[in-house]
Amino acid sequence: MPNILHRIGTGKATVQQMYDAISTIKGLSGWWTTKVEGEIKIGGILQFRFSKGGPDFEIIDLQPLKKAEWKCVQGPKEWVDTHIEFNISKENEETVLLFKHGGWREEVEFMHHCSTQWAYFLIGLRKFLETGEGTPYGKNLEPISQWSK
Amino acid sequence: MPNILHRIGTGKATVQQMYDAISTIKGLSGWWTTKVEGEIKIGGILQFRFSKGGPDFEIIDLQPLKKAEWKCVQGPKEWVDTHIEFNISKENEETVLLFKHGGWREEVEFMHHCSTQWAYFLIGLRKFLETGEGTPYGKNLEPISQWSK
Repeated sequence: MPNILHRIGTGKATVQQMYDAISTIKGLSGWWTTKVEGEIKIGGILQFRFSKGGPDFEIIDLQPLKKAEWKCVQGPKEWVDTHIEFNISKENEETVLLFKHGGWREEVEFMHHCSTQWAYFLIGLRKFLETGEGTPYGKNLEPISQWSK
Repeated sequence: MPNILHRIGTGKATVQQMYDAISTIKGLSGWWTTKVEGEIKIGGILQFRFSKGGPDFEIIDLQPLKKAEWKCVQGPKEWVDTHIEFNISKENEETVLLFKHGGWREEVEFMHHCSTQWAYFLIGLRKFLETGEGTPYGKNLEPISQWSK
């Protein structure tokens, strides 16, 4: 099945700081959307909101300092049942994040958009770690097209 | 085979301006790398250069105002024989670019990096069209990791 893949790295954040950015409400609100609620535990539900609703994810794996995996249980129809994986490692002097939004049914135009939009937010995650300021929805977001709204 | 997909759109550029950005040396140097040479015609070779060399592409399709397709004939081993496609359309009030870097053999870590790096440059292409200033290699580039160098 088609997957969206991304990779960022920074020498200015520890593995702990990268893990916190993907596994705490404060972290997630710093780079994806300021509107996020939920409980961070396996089986917990995370709710992300944008202008017109947004997806809910069930946390299905959580390995401190290493990995988080979520399954989409509500949201855009193309997203339901897709998985998001974050894998963290140390490479040379950098803390590296590998990102995968996997299990798309088809390479639809919306998947193209989501791929670029994920990159935008993940580049913002790097800025968030380096400067304390990301580019999440609700704060600093610059659109990549009308579909960003 | 795994593909990298992206989509950007802007209401501030015409289809002609978007096409020029992907099919002239001046356009390509405004958003991908300032070091680009070649002849824009079917069968022509485009040479893009970065700090440590860079890829050569043969132009295999060129449809004015609509499409360009290139085949990688030299460069990183993971890139050789992959194809890059640009498809332009008008959707509502926007000029939209669909991008595909297709035909990867495997979802290697370098593919994750290239996906994010392409998004970075394509978001820069949008800025180039809207403001005259992109974020190509050689000018304004902010790294997404050590691998950006």
